[in-house]
Amino acid sequence: MPNTNKPLILVTNDDGITAKGIRTLIDIATELGDVVVVAPDSPQSAMGHAITINNTLYLKEYTAHSHNHKEYTTSGTPVDCVKMASHEILDRKPDLCLSGINHGSNSAINVIYSGTMSAAVEAGIEGIPSIGFSLCDYSADADFEPARPYVKQIIENVLDKGMPKGLVFNVNIPKATHDEIKGVKICRQANAYWVEEFDKRTNPYGKDYYWLTGKFVNDDKGEDTDEWALEHNYISIVPTQYDLTAHHYIAELNTWDFDN
Amino acid sequence: MPNTNKPLILVTNDDGITAKGIRTLIDIATELGDVVVVAPDSPQSAMGHAITINNTLYLKEYTAHSHNHKEYTTSGTPVDCVKMASHEILDRKPDLCLSGINHGSNSAINVIYSGTMSAAVEAGIEGIPSIGFSLCDYSADADFEPARPYVKQIIENVLDKGMPKGLVFNVNIPKATHDEIKGVKICRQANAYWVEEFDKRTNPYGKDYYWLTGKFVNDDKGEDTDEWALEHNYISIVPTQYDLTAHHYIAELNTWDFDN
Repeated sequence: MPNTNKPLILVTNDDGITAKGIRTLIDIATELGDVVVVAPDSPQSAMGHAITINNTLYLKEYTAHSHNHKEYTTSGTPVDCVKMASHEILDRKPDLCLSGINHGSNSAINVIYSGTMSAAVEAGIEGIPSIGFSLCDYSADADFEPARPYVKQIIENVLDKGMPKGLVFNVNIPKATHDEIKGVKICRQANAYWVEEFDKRTNPYGKDYYWLTGKFVNDDKGEDTDEWALEHNYISIVPTQYDLTAHHYIAELNTWDFDN
Repeated sequence: MPNTNKPLILVTNDDGITAKGIRTLIDIATELGDVVVVAPDSPQSAMGHAITINNTLYLKEYTAHSHNHKEYTTSGTPVDCVKMASHEILDRKPDLCLSGINHGSNSAINVIYSGTMSAAVEAGIEGIPSIGFSLCDYSADADFEPARPYVKQIIENVLDKGMPKGLVFNVNIPKATHDEIKGVKICRQANAYWVEEFDKRTNPYGKDYYWLTGKFVNDDKGEDTDEWALEHNYISIVPTQYDLTAHHYIAELNTWDFDN
Protein backbone atom coordinates (compact mmCIF):
# COMPACT_ATOMS: atom_id res chain seq x y z
CA MET A 1 0.00 0.00 0.00
CA PRO A 2 1.20 3.56 -0.58
CA ASN A 3 2.28 5.21 2.64
CA THR A 4 2.11 8.93 2.03
CA ASN A 5 0.53 11.52 4.27
CA LYS A 6 -2.55 11.48 2.04
CA PRO A 7 -5.71 9.71 3.24
CA LEU A 8 -6.10 6.08 2.17
CA ILE A 9 -9.38 5.73 0.25
CA LEU A 10 -11.02 2.36 -0.50
CA VAL A 11 -13.31 2.50 -3.54
CA THR A 12 -15.92 -0.16 -4.32
CA ASN A 13 -19.33 -0.48 -6.00
CA ASP A 14 -21.97 -2.98 -7.03
CA ASP A 15 -22.08 -2.45 -10.80
CA GLY A 16 -18.66 -4.08 -11.26
CA ILE A 17 -15.18 -2.64 -11.70
CA THR A 18 -15.60 -1.58 -15.35
CA ALA A 19 -18.75 0.54 -14.78
CA LYS A 20 -18.58 4.19 -15.74
CA GLY A 21 -19.78 5.23 -12.29
CA ILE A 22 -16.88 3.66 -10.38
CA ARG A 23 -14.35 4.93 -12.94
CA THR A 24 -15.64 8.49 -12.28
CA LEU A 25 -15.48 7.96 -8.51
CA ILE A 26 -11.91 6.61 -8.78
CA ASP A 27 -10.94 9.71 -10.80
CA ILE A 28 -12.30 12.00 -8.10
CA ALA A 29 -10.80 9.94 -5.26
CA THR A 30 -7.29 10.03 -6.77
CA GLU A 31 -7.40 13.84 -6.52
CA LEU A 32 -8.01 13.54 -2.77
CA GLY A 33 -5.98 10.61 -1.51
CA ASP A 34 -4.19 7.32 -2.11
CA VAL A 35 -6.68 4.98 -3.71
CA VAL A 36 -7.15 1.21 -3.59
CA VAL A 37 -10.05 -0.28 -5.55
CA VAL A 38 -11.72 -3.60 -4.63
CA ALA A 39 -14.89 -4.17 -6.64
CA PRO A 40 -16.97 -7.09 -7.93
CA ASP A 41 -15.84 -8.70 -11.19
CA SER A 42 -19.46 -8.65 -12.42
CA PRO A 43 -22.63 -6.61 -11.70
CA GLN A 44 -24.04 -7.27 -8.20
CA SER A 45 -27.01 -4.92 -8.08
CA ALA A 46 -29.81 -5.63 -5.60
CA MET A 47 -27.57 -7.98 -3.61
CA GLY A 48 -28.41 -6.15 -0.37
CA HIS A 49 -26.10 -7.13 2.47
CA ALA A 50 -25.48 -10.62 1.08
CA ILE A 51 -22.16 -12.27 1.89
CA THR A 52 -20.61 -15.38 0.38
CA ILE A 53 -20.44 -18.19 2.93
CA ASN A 54 -21.50 -21.24 0.94
CA ASN A 55 -19.13 -20.65 -1.92
CA THR A 56 -15.48 -19.89 -2.56
CA LEU A 57 -14.20 -16.40 -3.25
CA TYR A 58 -11.65 -15.47 -5.88
CA LEU A 59 -9.47 -12.36 -5.76
CA LYS A 60 -7.65 -11.00 -8.80
CA GLU A 61 -5.49 -8.00 -9.52
CA TYR A 62 -7.08 -5.79 -12.15
CA THR A 63 -5.05 -3.66 -14.50
CA ALA A 64 -6.44 -0.18 -14.97
CA HIS A 65 -4.38 1.64 -17.52
CA SER A 66 -5.10 5.18 -16.45
CA HIS A 67 -3.81 5.13 -12.89
CA ASN A 68 -0.92 4.09 -10.71
CA HIS A 69 -2.95 2.76 -7.81
CA LYS A 70 -3.83 -0.90 -7.20
CA GLU A 71 -7.14 -2.38 -8.28
CA TYR A 72 -8.62 -5.79 -7.43
CA THR A 73 -11.74 -7.70 -8.35
CA THR A 74 -13.46 -10.36 -6.28
CA SER A 75 -15.98 -12.98 -7.38
CA GLY A 76 -18.18 -12.00 -4.43
CA THR A 77 -20.74 -9.40 -3.43
CA PRO A 78 -20.02 -5.73 -2.63
CA VAL A 79 -19.94 -6.60 1.10
CA ASP A 80 -17.44 -9.40 0.38
CA CYS A 81 -15.27 -6.80 -1.41
CA VAL A 82 -15.11 -4.59 1.68
CA LYS A 83 -14.33 -7.58 3.93
CA MET A 84 -11.62 -8.78 1.53
CA ALA A 85 -10.12 -5.29 1.34
CA SER A 86 -10.03 -4.85 5.12
CA HIS A 87 -8.82 -8.27 6.08
CA GLU A 88 -6.83 -9.60 3.15
CA ILE A 89 -5.61 -6.74 0.94
CA LEU A 90 -4.96 -3.57 2.96
CA ASP A 91 -2.25 -3.42 5.58
CA ARG A 92 -3.91 -0.54 7.42
CA LYS A 93 -7.43 0.72 7.96
CA PRO A 94 -8.59 3.07 5.20
CA ASP A 95 -9.48 6.63 6.21
CA LEU A 96 -12.53 6.55 3.99
CA CYS A 97 -14.62 4.14 1.93
CA LEU A 98 -16.47 5.32 -1.18
CA SER A 99 -19.06 3.12 -2.88
CA GLY A 100 -20.55 3.82 -6.30
CA ILE A 101 -21.28 5.94 -8.17
CA ASN A 102 -24.23 3.65 -8.68
CA HIS A 103 -26.07 3.63 -11.97
CA GLY A 104 -29.57 4.17 -10.54
CA SER A 105 -31.19 5.63 -7.44
CA ASN A 106 -30.69 4.26 -3.93
CA SER A 107 -33.08 6.68 -2.27
CA ALA A 108 -35.89 5.81 0.14
CA ILE A 109 -36.34 2.08 0.84
CA ASN A 110 -33.88 1.22 -1.96
CA VAL A 111 -31.16 1.66 0.64
CA ILE A 112 -31.89 -1.83 2.00
CA TYR A 113 -31.83 -3.63 -1.37
CA SER A 114 -28.74 -1.77 -2.55
CA GLY A 115 -25.37 -3.44 -2.93
CA THR A 116 -23.78 0.02 -3.16
CA MET A 117 -25.15 1.06 0.21
CA SER A 118 -24.50 -2.32 1.83
CA ALA A 119 -20.82 -2.00 0.94
CA ALA A 120 -20.82 1.47 2.52
CA VAL A 121 -22.61 0.14 5.62
CA GLU A 122 -20.15 -2.76 5.91
CA ALA A 123 -17.25 -0.29 5.94
CA GLY A 124 -19.13 1.74 8.58
CA ILE A 125 -19.49 -1.35 10.76
CA GLU A 126 -15.72 -1.80 10.49
CA GLY A 127 -15.25 1.76 11.78
CA ILE A 128 -14.40 3.34 8.41
CA PRO A 129 -16.14 6.65 7.51
CA SER A 130 -18.10 5.75 4.45
CA ILE A 131 -20.24 7.26 1.68
CA GLY A 132 -22.43 5.60 -0.93
CA PHE A 133 -23.09 7.63 -4.09
CA SER A 134 -25.85 6.97 -6.61
CA LEU A 135 -26.98 8.79 -9.75
CA CYS A 136 -30.68 8.57 -10.68
CA ASP A 137 -29.88 7.20 -14.13
CA TYR A 138 -29.76 3.45 -14.75
CA SER A 139 -28.14 3.63 -18.19
CA ALA A 140 -24.65 2.18 -18.59
CA ASP A 141 -23.66 5.38 -20.37
CA ALA A 142 -25.11 7.77 -17.76
CA ASP A 143 -23.51 11.23 -17.57
CA PHE A 144 -21.62 11.54 -14.27
CA GLU A 145 -19.95 14.89 -15.13
CA PRO A 146 -22.54 17.22 -13.53
CA ALA A 147 -22.15 15.25 -10.26
CA ARG A 148 -18.35 15.58 -10.11
CA PRO A 149 -17.90 18.87 -8.16
CA TYR A 150 -20.60 17.88 -5.64
CA VAL A 151 -19.17 14.41 -5.08
CA LYS A 152 -15.73 15.91 -4.55
CA GLN A 153 -17.01 18.50 -2.11
CA ILE A 154 -18.97 15.96 -0.07
CA ILE A 155 -15.86 13.77 0.19
CA GLU A 156 -13.72 16.77 1.19
CA ASN A 157 -16.23 17.66 3.89
CA VAL A 158 -16.08 14.14 5.35
CA LEU A 159 -12.26 14.01 5.19
CA ASP A 160 -12.23 17.36 6.99
CA LYS A 161 -14.97 16.87 9.59
CA GLY A 162 -15.03 13.10 10.03
CA MET A 163 -18.11 11.00 10.63
CA PRO A 164 -19.31 9.66 13.98
CA LYS A 165 -19.20 5.88 14.47
CA GLY A 166 -22.53 4.22 13.76
CA LEU A 167 -23.49 6.00 10.58
CA VAL A 168 -22.66 6.34 6.89
CA PHE A 169 -23.94 8.75 4.22
CA ASN A 170 -26.38 7.81 1.48
CA VAL A 171 -25.91 10.36 -1.32
CA ASN A 172 -28.27 10.42 -4.30
CA ILE A 173 -27.79 12.69 -7.29
CA PRO A 174 -30.60 13.75 -9.64
CA LYS A 175 -30.31 13.13 -13.37
CA ALA A 176 -29.78 16.75 -14.32
CA THR A 177 -27.31 19.12 -15.96
CA HIS A 178 -24.84 21.06 -13.81
CA ASP A 179 -26.96 24.22 -14.15
CA GLU A 180 -30.12 22.39 -13.18
CA ILE A 181 -28.68 20.96 -9.93
CA LYS A 182 -29.76 23.33 -7.15
CA GLY A 183 -27.40 22.16 -4.42
CA VAL A 184 -27.28 19.67 -1.55
CA LYS A 185 -30.07 18.88 0.94
CA ILE A 186 -29.77 16.87 4.17
CA CYS A 187 -32.78 14.55 4.18
CA ARG A 188 -34.57 11.70 5.82
CA GLN A 189 -35.32 8.45 3.96
CA ALA A 190 -38.73 8.85 2.28
CA ASN A 191 -41.43 6.40 3.25
CA ALA A 192 -41.73 5.08 -0.31
CA TYR A 193 -41.84 1.47 -1.50
CA TRP A 194 -42.13 -0.88 -4.47
CA VAL A 195 -45.33 -2.49 -5.65
CA GLU A 196 -44.18 -5.64 -7.36
CA GLU A 197 -45.51 -7.11 -10.53
CA PHE A 198 -44.27 -10.49 -11.66
CA ASP A 199 -43.97 -10.91 -15.39
CA LYS A 200 -44.89 -14.57 -15.94
CA ARG A 201 -43.47 -16.33 -19.01
CA THR A 202 -43.01 -19.84 -20.29
CA ASN A 203 -39.55 -21.15 -21.15
CA PRO A 204 -38.80 -23.12 -24.36
CA TYR A 205 -39.30 -26.34 -22.36
CA GLY A 206 -42.82 -25.45 -21.27
CA LYS A 207 -41.98 -24.45 -17.72
CA ASP A 208 -43.34 -21.22 -16.22
CA TYR A 209 -40.93 -18.66 -14.82
CA TYR A 210 -41.13 -15.12 -13.52
CA TRP A 211 -39.30 -11.82 -13.84
CA LEU A 212 -39.53 -9.47 -10.88
CA THR A 213 -40.69 -6.03 -11.99
CA GLY A 214 -42.46 -3.28 -10.13
CA LYS A 215 -43.56 0.29 -9.67
CA PHE A 216 -42.02 2.67 -7.13
CA VAL A 217 -44.69 4.41 -5.06
CA ASN A 218 -44.06 7.47 -2.88
CA ASP A 219 -46.90 8.26 -0.49
CA ASP A 220 -44.64 10.43 1.66
CA LYS A 221 -45.49 14.09 1.10
CA GLY A 222 -42.76 15.42 3.43
CA GLU A 223 -40.48 18.09 1.99
CA ASP A 224 -37.59 16.85 4.12
CA THR A 225 -37.25 13.52 2.26
CA ASP A 226 -34.68 12.32 -0.25
CA GLU A 227 -37.44 11.76 -2.81
CA TRP A 228 -38.59 15.39 -2.52
CA ALA A 229 -35.03 16.65 -2.86
CA LEU A 230 -34.28 14.55 -5.97
CA GLU A 231 -37.56 15.50 -7.61
CA HIS A 232 -36.61 19.16 -7.14
CA ASN A 233 -33.09 18.66 -8.53
CA TYR A 234 -31.28 18.69 -5.20
CA ILE A 235 -28.59 16.18 -4.27
CA SER A 236 -29.84 14.31 -1.16
CA ILE A 237 -27.67 13.19 1.76
CA VAL A 238 -29.33 10.84 4.25
CA PRO A 239 -27.27 10.04 7.34
CA THR A 240 -27.89 6.29 7.56
CA GLN A 241 -27.46 4.02 10.58
CA TYR A 242 -27.17 0.28 11.05
CA ASP A 243 -28.48 0.07 14.58
CA LEU A 244 -31.95 -1.03 13.47
CA THR A 245 -33.41 -0.97 17.00
CA ALA A 246 -36.71 0.91 17.16
CA HIS A 247 -35.68 2.44 20.50
CA HIS A 248 -38.94 4.40 20.77
CA TYR A 249 -40.95 1.16 20.94
CA ILE A 250 -39.03 -0.58 23.75
CA ALA A 251 -41.07 1.02 26.56
CA GLU A 252 -44.35 0.00 24.89
CA LEU A 253 -43.15 -3.58 24.39
CA ASN A 254 -42.20 -3.80 28.05
CA THR A 255 -45.90 -3.48 28.91
CA TRP A 256 -46.71 -6.70 26.99
CA ASP A 257 -47.16 -9.95 28.85
CA PHE A 258 -44.60 -12.61 28.00
CA ASP A 259 -44.77 -14.77 31.14
CA ASN A 260 -44.82 -18.41 30.28
CA MET B 1 -56.66 -19.45 -0.11
CA PRO B 2 -58.69 -20.61 2.90
CA ASN B 3 -61.24 -18.01 3.91
CA THR B 4 -62.10 -18.70 7.52
CA ASN B 5 -62.25 -16.19 10.33
CA LYS B 6 -58.80 -17.29 11.42
CA PRO B 7 -55.81 -15.04 10.73
CA LEU B 8 -53.91 -15.75 7.50
CA ILE B 9 -50.27 -16.46 8.35
CA LEU B 10 -47.47 -16.47 5.76
CA VAL B 11 -44.49 -18.58 6.84
CA THR B 12 -41.05 -18.33 5.24
CA ASN B 13 -37.38 -18.79 6.15
CA ASP B 14 -33.88 -18.75 4.72
CA ASP B 15 -32.73 -22.29 5.50
CA GLY B 16 -35.05 -23.77 2.87
CA ILE B 17 -38.48 -25.41 3.13
CA THR B 18 -37.26 -28.76 4.50
CA ALA B 19 -35.36 -27.29 7.48
CA LYS B 20 -36.39 -28.45 10.94
CA GLY B 21 -36.80 -24.83 12.08
CA ILE B 22 -39.48 -23.92 9.54
CA ARG B 23 -41.29 -27.22 10.08
CA THR B 24 -41.54 -26.35 13.81
CA LEU B 25 -42.74 -22.82 13.02
CA ILE B 26 -45.36 -24.19 10.60
CA ASP B 27 -46.59 -26.56 13.33
CA ILE B 28 -47.03 -23.68 15.76
CA ALA B 29 -48.61 -21.40 13.15
CA THR B 30 -51.25 -23.98 12.19
CA GLU B 31 -52.49 -23.90 15.81
CA LEU B 32 -53.08 -20.15 15.47
CA GLY B 33 -54.33 -19.49 11.96
CA ASP B 34 -54.61 -20.46 8.31
CA VAL B 35 -51.13 -21.06 7.02
CA VAL B 36 -49.51 -20.59 3.61
CA VAL B 37 -45.81 -21.42 3.28
CA VAL B 38 -43.54 -19.84 0.63
CA ALA B 39 -39.89 -20.66 1.26
CA PRO B 40 -36.66 -21.05 -0.72
CA ASP B 41 -36.07 -24.40 -2.40
CA SER B 42 -32.48 -24.37 -1.10
CA PRO B 43 -30.58 -22.75 1.79
CA GLN B 44 -30.26 -18.95 1.41
CA SER B 45 -28.44 -17.98 4.59
CA ALA B 46 -26.54 -14.68 4.69
CA MET B 47 -28.39 -13.43 1.61
CA GLY B 48 -29.30 -10.19 3.39
CA HIS B 49 -31.96 -8.22 1.55
CA ALA B 50 -30.90 -9.57 -1.85
CA ILE B 51 -33.57 -9.82 -4.56
CA THR B 52 -33.44 -11.60 -7.90
CA ILE B 53 -33.50 -9.11 -10.76
CA ASN B 54 -30.89 -10.48 -13.16
CA ASN B 55 -32.27 -14.00 -13.19
CA THR B 56 -35.53 -15.84 -13.62
CA LEU B 57 -37.60 -17.07 -10.71
CA TYR B 58 -39.30 -20.44 -10.49
CA LEU B 59 -42.27 -21.20 -8.28
CA LYS B 60 -43.34 -24.75 -7.38
CA GLU B 61 -46.02 -26.30 -5.21
CA TYR B 62 -44.46 -28.34 -2.44
CA THR B 63 -46.22 -31.34 -0.95
CA ALA B 64 -45.96 -31.48 2.81
CA HIS B 65 -47.55 -34.66 4.03
CA SER B 66 -48.45 -33.60 7.53
CA HIS B 67 -50.75 -30.66 6.83
CA ASN B 68 -53.68 -29.49 4.77
CA HIS B 69 -52.36 -26.03 3.98
CA LYS B 70 -50.58 -24.99 0.77
CA GLU B 71 -46.81 -24.85 0.53
CA TYR B 72 -44.65 -23.40 -2.25
CA THR B 73 -40.96 -23.14 -2.98
CA THR B 74 -39.23 -20.49 -5.07
CA SER B 75 -35.79 -20.55 -6.65
CA GLY B 76 -35.13 -17.10 -5.18
CA THR B 77 -34.05 -15.45 -1.96
CA PRO B 78 -36.15 -15.10 1.22
CA VAL B 79 -37.14 -11.57 0.13
CA ASP B 80 -38.21 -12.94 -3.28
CA CYS B 81 -40.40 -15.47 -1.42
CA VAL B 82 -42.29 -12.72 0.42
CA LYS B 83 -42.71 -10.70 -2.79
CA MET B 84 -43.93 -13.80 -4.67
CA ALA B 85 -46.34 -14.64 -1.85
CA SER B 86 -47.81 -11.13 -1.71
CA HIS B 87 -48.07 -10.44 -5.40
CA GLU B 88 -48.46 -13.80 -7.10
CA ILE B 89 -49.76 -16.43 -4.67
CA LEU B 90 -52.01 -14.90 -2.02
CA ASP B 91 -55.32 -13.31 -2.94
CA ARG B 92 -55.39 -11.19 0.21
CA LYS B 93 -52.86 -9.57 2.50
CA PRO B 94 -51.70 -11.91 5.27
CA ASP B 95 -52.42 -10.85 8.85
CA LEU B 96 -48.96 -11.94 9.92
CA CYS B 97 -45.65 -13.08 8.46
CA LEU B 98 -43.39 -15.46 10.38
CA SER B 99 -39.83 -16.11 9.26
CA GLY B 100 -37.62 -18.88 10.64
CA ILE B 101 -37.06 -20.51 12.97
CA ASN B 102 -33.51 -19.89 11.80
CA HIS B 103 -30.79 -22.40 12.60
CA GLY B 104 -28.35 -19.92 14.16
CA SER B 105 -28.40 -16.53 15.87
CA ASN B 106 -29.53 -13.33 14.20
CA SER B 107 -28.76 -11.10 17.15
CA ALA B 108 -26.77 -7.85 17.08
CA ILE B 109 -25.38 -6.86 13.67
CA ASN B 110 -26.35 -10.28 12.24
CA VAL B 111 -29.77 -8.74 11.59
CA ILE B 112 -28.42 -7.04 8.47
CA TYR B 113 -26.77 -10.15 6.97
CA SER B 114 -29.73 -12.36 7.78
CA GLY B 115 -32.05 -13.74 5.13
CA THR B 116 -34.52 -14.67 7.90
CA MET B 117 -34.76 -11.09 9.11
CA SER B 118 -34.75 -9.60 5.61
CA ALA B 119 -37.84 -11.67 4.76
CA ALA B 120 -39.49 -10.35 7.94
CA VAL B 121 -38.47 -6.77 7.08
CA GLU B 122 -39.79 -7.16 3.51
CA ALA B 123 -43.18 -8.21 4.89
CA GLY B 124 -43.04 -5.21 7.24
CA ILE B 125 -42.40 -2.87 4.31
CA GLU B 126 -45.52 -4.33 2.68
CA GLY B 127 -47.51 -3.47 5.80
CA ILE B 128 -47.69 -7.00 7.22
CA PRO B 129 -46.95 -7.43 10.97
CA SER B 130 -43.93 -9.65 10.96
CA ILE B 131 -41.62 -11.63 13.25
CA GLY B 132 -38.28 -13.29 12.57
CA PHE B 133 -37.33 -16.14 14.90
CA SER B 134 -33.84 -17.58 15.33
CA LEU B 135 -32.40 -20.25 17.62
CA CYS B 136 -28.76 -19.91 18.69
CA ASP B 137 -27.89 -23.36 17.35
CA TYR B 138 -26.56 -23.79 13.81
CA SER B 139 -26.94 -27.58 13.68
CA ALA B 140 -29.43 -29.02 11.20
CA ASP B 141 -30.77 -31.21 14.00
CA ALA B 142 -31.13 -28.37 16.56
CA ASP B 143 -33.75 -28.90 19.30
CA PHE B 144 -36.61 -26.42 18.75
CA GLU B 145 -38.90 -27.95 21.43
CA PRO B 146 -37.88 -25.70 24.36
CA ALA B 147 -38.66 -22.66 22.18
CA ARG B 148 -42.17 -23.76 21.24
CA PRO B 149 -44.29 -22.25 24.06
CA TYR B 150 -42.41 -18.95 23.85
CA VAL B 151 -42.70 -18.71 20.07
CA LYS B 152 -46.42 -19.41 20.34
CA GLN B 153 -46.93 -16.80 23.04
CA ILE B 154 -45.03 -14.12 21.15
CA ILE B 155 -47.15 -14.78 18.05
CA GLU B 156 -50.37 -14.70 20.12
CA ASN B 157 -49.31 -11.36 21.60
CA VAL B 158 -48.76 -9.86 18.15
CA LEU B 159 -52.05 -11.26 16.79
CA ASP B 160 -53.77 -9.75 19.83
CA LYS B 161 -52.03 -6.37 20.09
CA GLY B 162 -50.87 -5.73 16.52
CA MET B 163 -47.66 -4.07 15.51
CA PRO B 164 -47.25 -0.45 14.43
CA LYS B 165 -46.27 0.16 10.79
CA GLY B 166 -42.53 0.67 10.36
CA LEU B 167 -41.23 -2.10 12.56
CA VAL B 168 -40.88 -5.87 12.84
CA PHE B 169 -39.66 -8.08 15.70
CA ASN B 170 -36.29 -9.83 15.78
CA VAL B 171 -36.63 -12.75 18.22
CA ASN B 172 -33.59 -14.79 19.23
CA ILE B 173 -33.78 -17.87 21.41
CA PRO B 174 -30.86 -19.21 23.47
CA LYS B 175 -29.71 -22.79 23.02
CA ALA B 176 -31.07 -24.06 26.34
CA THR B 177 -33.51 -26.52 27.85
CA HIS B 178 -37.03 -25.40 28.74
CA ASP B 179 -36.08 -25.20 32.43
CA GLU B 180 -32.98 -23.15 31.68
CA ILE B 181 -34.85 -20.49 29.66
CA LYS B 182 -35.58 -17.64 32.07
CA GLY B 183 -38.17 -15.76 30.03
CA VAL B 184 -38.41 -12.97 27.46
CA LYS B 185 -36.49 -9.67 27.46
CA ILE B 186 -37.14 -6.62 25.26
CA CYS B 187 -33.71 -5.52 24.06
CA ARG B 188 -31.74 -3.22 21.84
CA GLN B 189 -29.39 -4.58 19.15
CA ALA B 190 -25.95 -5.06 20.75
CA ASN B 191 -23.08 -3.13 19.24
CA ALA B 192 -21.20 -6.33 18.34
CA TYR B 193 -19.54 -7.22 15.05
CA TRP B 194 -17.54 -9.82 13.11
CA VAL B 195 -13.80 -9.79 12.71
CA GLU B 196 -13.23 -11.64 9.47
CA GLU B 197 -10.52 -14.11 8.73
CA PHE B 198 -10.14 -15.42 5.21
CA ASP B 199 -9.05 -19.03 4.96
CA LYS B 200 -6.85 -19.04 1.84
CA ARG B 201 -6.52 -22.33 -0.07
CA THR B 202 -5.36 -23.51 -3.45
CA ASN B 203 -7.69 -25.41 -5.77
CA PRO B 204 -6.66 -28.58 -7.65
CA TYR B 205 -5.83 -26.39 -10.67
CA GLY B 206 -3.36 -24.23 -8.75
CA LYS B 207 -5.59 -21.21 -8.31
CA ASP B 208 -5.94 -19.50 -4.92
CA TYR B 209 -9.37 -19.10 -3.40
CA TYR B 210 -10.80 -17.99 -0.07
CA TRP B 211 -13.40 -19.05 2.47
CA LEU B 212 -14.94 -16.30 4.57
CA THR B 213 -14.68 -17.13 8.27
CA GLY B 214 -14.61 -14.94 11.32
CA LYS B 215 -14.95 -14.31 15.02
CA PHE B 216 -17.92 -12.54 16.60
CA VAL B 217 -16.81 -9.80 18.98
CA ASN B 218 -19.09 -8.10 21.51
CA ASP B 219 -17.61 -4.96 23.03
CA ASP B 220 -21.02 -3.75 24.18
CA LYS B 221 -21.29 -4.19 27.95
CA GLY B 222 -24.92 -2.97 28.16
CA GLU B 223 -27.34 -5.22 30.04
CA ASP B 224 -30.19 -4.11 27.79
CA THR B 225 -28.78 -5.80 24.66
CA ASP B 226 -29.85 -8.94 22.85
CA GLU B 227 -26.38 -10.42 23.38
CA TRP B 228 -26.65 -9.95 27.17
CA ALA B 229 -30.12 -11.51 27.22
CA LEU B 230 -29.07 -14.57 25.20
CA GLU B 231 -25.94 -15.09 27.27
CA HIS B 232 -28.14 -15.14 30.38
CA ASN B 233 -30.63 -17.59 28.84
CA TYR B 234 -33.34 -15.06 28.07
CA ILE B 235 -35.19 -14.93 24.76
CA SER B 236 -34.50 -11.51 23.22
CA ILE B 237 -37.00 -9.40 21.28
CA VAL B 238 -35.57 -6.40 19.44
CA PRO B 239 -38.15 -4.11 17.81
CA THR B 240 -36.45 -3.52 14.46
CA GLN B 241 -37.07 -0.69 11.98
CA TYR B 242 -36.25 -0.17 8.33
CA ASP B 243 -36.17 3.61 8.34
CA LEU B 244 -32.37 3.76 8.51
CA THR B 245 -32.25 7.58 8.81
CA ALA B 246 -29.99 8.71 11.66
CA HIS B 247 -32.49 11.44 12.56
CA HIS B 248 -30.34 12.67 15.45
CA TYR B 249 -27.56 13.66 13.04
CA ILE B 250 -29.59 15.77 10.59
CA ALA B 251 -29.23 19.01 12.59
CA GLU B 252 -25.43 18.57 12.80
CA LEU B 253 -25.16 17.88 9.06
CA ASN B 254 -27.12 21.03 8.32
CA THR B 255 -24.23 23.05 9.78
CA TRP B 256 -21.83 21.66 7.13
CA ASP B 257 -20.97 23.72 4.07
CA PHE B 258 -22.10 22.20 0.77
CA ASP B 259 -22.26 25.30 -1.42
CA ASN B 260 -20.74 24.71 -4.79
